[in-house]
Amino acid sequence: MSRVVRAPRGTELHCKNWQIEAPYRMIMNNLDPEVAEDPANLIVYGGAGKAARNWEAFDKILESLENLEEDETLLVQSGKPVGIFKTHEMAPRVLISNAMLVPKWANWETFWDLEAKGLTMYGQMTAGSWIYIGSQGIVEGTFETFAALAKKHFDGSLKGKFVLSAGLGGMGGAQPLAITMLDGACLIVEVDRNRIKRRLETKYLDVMAEDLDEALGMVMKAKEEGRALSVGLVGNAADVHPELVRRGIIPDVVTDQTSAHDPLNGYVPNGMTLDEAIALRKSNPEEYIKRAKKAMAEHVLAMLEMQKRGAIVFDYGNNIRRMAYDEGVKDAFNIPSYVPEYIRDLFCEGKGPFRWVALSGDPEDIYKTDQKVLELFPDDPILNRWIRLARERVKFQGLPARICWLGYGQRAEFGLAINEMVRKGELKAPIVIGRDHHDTGSVASPYRETEAMKDGSDAIADWPILNALLNTASGATWVSVHHGGGVGIGYSIHAGVVVCADGTKETDLRIERVLTGDPGLGIVRHADAGYEIAIKTAKEKGIKMPMLK
Amino acid sequence: MSRVVRAPRGTELHCKNWQIEAPYRMIMNNLDPEVAEDPANLIVYGGAGKAARNWEAFDKILESLENLEEDETLLVQSGKPVGIFKTHEMAPRVLISNAMLVPKWANWETFWDLEAKGLTMYGQMTAGSWIYIGSQGIVEGTFETFAALAKKHFDGSLKGKFVLSAGLGGMGGAQPLAITMLDGACLIVEVDRNRIKRRLETKYLDVMAEDLDEALGMVMKAKEEGRALSVGLVGNAADVHPELVRRGIIPDVVTDQTSAHDPLNGYVPNGMTLDEAIALRKSNPEEYIKRAKKAMAEHVLAMLEMQKRGAIVFDYGNNIRRMAYDEGVKDAFNIPSYVPEYIRDLFCEGKGPFRWVALSGDPEDIYKTDQKVLELFPDDPILNRWIRLARERVKFQGLPARICWLGYGQRAEFGLAINEMVRKGELKAPIVIGRDHHDTGSVASPYRETEAMKDGSDAIADWPILNALLNTASGATWVSVHHGGGVGIGYSIHAGVVVCADGTKETDLRIERVLTGDPGLGIVRHADAGYEIAIKTAKEKGIKMPMLK
Ligand SMILES: NC(=O)c1ccc[n+]([C@@H]2O[C@H](COP(=O)([O-])OP(=O)(O)OC[C@H]3O[C@@H](n4cnc5c(N)ncnc54)[C@H](O)[C@@H]3O)[C@@H](O)[C@H]2O)c1
Ligand SMILES: NC(=O)c1ccc[n+]([C@@H]2O[C@H](COP(=O)([O-])OP(=O)(O)OC[C@H]3O[C@@H](n4cnc5c(N)ncnc54)[C@H](O)[C@@H]3O)[C@@H](O)[C@H]2O)c1
Repeated sequence: MSRVVRAPRGTELHCKNWQIEAPYRMIMNNLDPEVAEDPANLIVYGGAGKAARNWEAFDKILESLENLEEDETLLVQSGKPVGIFKTHEMAPRVLISNAMLVPKWANWETFWDLEAKGLTMYGQMTAGSWIYIGSQGIVEGTFETFAALAKKHFDGSLKGKFVLSAGLGGMGGAQPLAITMLDGACLIVEVDRNRIKRRLETKYLDVMAEDLDEALGMVMKAKEEGRALSVGLVGNAADVHPELVRRGIIPDVVTDQTSAHDPLNGYVPNGMTLDEAIALRKSNPEEYIKRAKKAMAEHVLAMLEMQKRGAIVFDYGNNIRRMAYDEGVKDAFNIPSYVPEYIRDLFCEGKGPFRWVALSGDPEDIYKTDQKVLELFPDDPILNRWIRLARERVKFQGLPARICWLGYGQRAEFGLAINEMVRKGELKAPIVIGRDHHDTGSVASPYRETEAMKDGSDAIADWPILNALLNTASGATWVSVHHGGGVGIGYSIHAGVVVCADGTKETDLRIERVLTGDPGLGIVRHADAGYEIAIKTAKEKGIKMPMLK
Repeated sequence: MSRVVRAPRGTELHCKNWQIEAPYRMIMNNLDPEVAEDPANLIVYGGAGKAARNWEAFDKILESLENLEEDETLLVQSGKPVGIFKTHEMAPRVLISNAMLVPKWANWETFWDLEAKGLTMYGQMTAGSWIYIGSQGIVEGTFETFAALAKKHFDGSLKGKFVLSAGLGGMGGAQPLAITMLDGACLIVEVDRNRIKRRLETKYLDVMAEDLDEALGMVMKAKEEGRALSVGLVGNAADVHPELVRRGIIPDVVTDQTSAHDPLNGYVPNGMTLDEAIALRKSNPEEYIKRAKKAMAEHVLAMLEMQKRGAIVFDYGNNIRRMAYDEGVKDAFNIPSYVPEYIRDLFCEGKGPFRWVALSGDPEDIYKTDQKVLELFPDDPILNRWIRLARERVKFQGLPARICWLGYGQRAEFGLAINEMVRKGELKAPIVIGRDHHDTGSVASPYRETEAMKDGSDAIADWPILNALLNTASGATWVSVHHGGGVGIGYSIHAGVVVCADGTKETDLRIERVLTGDPGLGIVRHADAGYEIAIKTAKEKGIKMPMLK
């Protein structure tokens, strides 16, 4: 019988203060069945992204936090609580490093060897740093990306457009909702029927189809009528996409959110049923990986062909291009990444996926903060549209949470406002404030966030390390450094941060420093690389950059 | 005309307080001509280990520190000051990340590409983290290693033994002194005549020889007479070592300290003069690397042959085995590393190369602390022998400094005692307390510090990251994370820490936490890997390890 974990709600403390209670609730929330993809195996999202090394480690993390003193810090090494040391009250309560490997050994093969020996854990981005909030959280990132795409290529909306993608997992499940929020019609291919059902349940997806003709019929009709519609098709993208090419059906926009970054536990090869694939994964992992990579090559070849015939095709950060390239698809990188295409300009202003979670468990707490953010930033049209649509259409999973992209200055301002609301008793309990690692100053990932940097600094990984050190120095509640999130082992280093707004005056300092330094470093990183928008922002905001001319 | 840098002495501050003055003086001290190997090029030691990216960056670091507020933190990205953010007074004043690369790109070729673009810097270990103190500092590590070897294989001394090695650079220069301190006779082959002269000047080396017969004559005579003697031979180890084998001359102990970790700027190929090699390095770097690696293979083959014929041969952490292995010397790893052989037991007790520097510049300050450490730990024979010999034979380079291996508990105790001496005015100015990255809990380096770990966790790099985060949380004065020190790009990740004993009461807290948590994490790392000594130490000292049984 599998164990069910759910964060405690309400105001009763299980730990010595809210700075400790916050990670205590959030690791449990990451494994809430509403939030996690496979909680029985501690898997939160993104292939095998876990919250703790194993159940024993999970229990000991909770026990450690229950007993932690207000001036102690718990160290977590790849999901295992390894030590507790005395620090001080303004220091983080938890420090985490997940899946870091000495570079020469930083490949999936060695990683799985070490994982099998019980020595490491894959933490993805927000799984192992305890701030994943289910698909709801990333709907907005997807919304933001498609909004930028619509603005760049169309008239700002996806009305009358046909979007094709695959994957309805933890991240991918956000696609149909984001696309319909922008009035588009989309077909999302997903090999796992249960994933599709799940997205229907949460209303992220409108319809499920078992048959390609049926699915295409619905999508094409919606496109013609300029009607928003999302269809989830049971199928394998490596079969469906080439079939569409054969039929000469070319969508307006094509992308992909299968777990291609992980050829063993993520991507499902074609030419077999899902059950057969799962069996093969266990019986012959090498053969599985071979077949998965071959399927990815077919999948990408179809995407390239659609691009040639006029579709707007972009990579959505799952490393599928690299996998196909290794399989001989030499022009795989003709597909541009969404970051330089749509996101980098936002990063240059220090904008990124800011998120917050109500530790009370009460949705009212989030609705009140929704109100507050609208009050503070009335002139931001995307933010306003998003917050209103999110309230309507995004179902909370686990502890109620909200996300929106906020920039330098905005983050600290809003964070302080939240802390004041907690202090004044306007909210039932403290709020944790965090972000994805997929942010402006916190990630080095040459096939995603730092692809094609202006100065060629794609692979420089000092930035996420400085980010984690700065956030630790700034008094965040917990800080994490990860390897391999998003694009897989070997391809990224990134850092996470969470600060708990417990309403105290000291926490005003924490919040102000963390929410200023964290996005500030993102601006510095991009200004240092020569981006005009970032240089301008750094100067306007008075960010101190000793070598900026 | 090349610029000469030297740290200011005395009690006058150039920065707002001693926590800022300390890194300000120490970066300059790293480039003091007495300390650095090639100060004109900002190179401190170990091949190309630098203190700052370039002179402009160096000047801006100083300027930034001069203007830094007491609650601000300067961020240094691979030797370049990139940003200044508000943190708080108990946070570090400087945070550094050097040469970190996304693992897939973590190789020398990409590194030098990026370095040529001005985007990164090689920081070695203590070069880029501003706590290198010249050869004096590492004599003791070498002494400690040879003492452990003598204890394990002989009767505790090297009397009547012939030790062969090569390299008299920043690290290697310590070998002759350490060996003669243990009464051994040694021959050190060094390709660069100037390096030999330098070691003669500082009295680390007794004699220079230009000719092999002459050198051998002296060494063999000393061995027979049981007399301590060190001879530096001008020559290339890839020539001399095979020649010794041909002559059937097999030393008792063989090791190596050429800069083999860096086949372009470190190791010098044979079959050409040093000048020809320097010219080739510039004109045809690829050819240079090819020849250097070939020479390393010949060098290692000779070492292996000596091992077969009865010599005690060990690798001293310069990655020469790996280079030879890549060149086809398949049994290169038959040579064991000094860490599992001689050092790991010390690491298990939290022991490692603790060091301190007198910011006053006054040798008396160090002599007084020498006295203090002898008073505090009268029962440690190696410590006692070392401190007495060091006072006699180790010449200070740059700011006066001392090193000795201290364990968990000892470090904090001594650190607090130093801070009290500063507080009471017994010392003229504050003292900085730091260590090498080559320490118990601060490094992942599968060909050196973490070679052959009991649980197979050699490549797990969470530990140095946790170390840097913990030291930041503990309020160290500066903290650094580096990639590639010692064994080269791709092969290691490690962290440094320095805390400035400025005599204040708040600094008692910093010192106690940093000097407890830092070695404590080393014990945790080794206990987690299953080492009995570490498990015992953790239990005895009451270190909190949530999952220790
Ligand atoms: N763009 C971003 O912001 C971003 C952020 C984080 C992660 N990612 C990446 O996006 C990818 C998806 O993430 P996720 O959390 O949804 O992963 P997930 O593992 O939860 O979901 C992937 C889904 O793809 C399906 N799938 C696998 N192979 C398939 C195939 N051949 N055809 C059709 N469906 C297939 C799986 O059944 C699964 O439902 C990952 O690679 C992740 O690293 C992107
Ligand atoms: N064991 C340890 O504790 C430890 C610590 C740090 C570094 N190291 C490693 O030890 C090595 C030496 O460090 P260093 O600081 O002395 O480096 P260095 O560059 O200052 O000195 C290396 C010396 O080797 C000489 N040399 C190069 N090729 C030679 C050859 N073929 N024959 C003879 N001499 C040759 C050079 O002229 C130079 O003087 C490095 O690889 C370093 O990474 C070891």
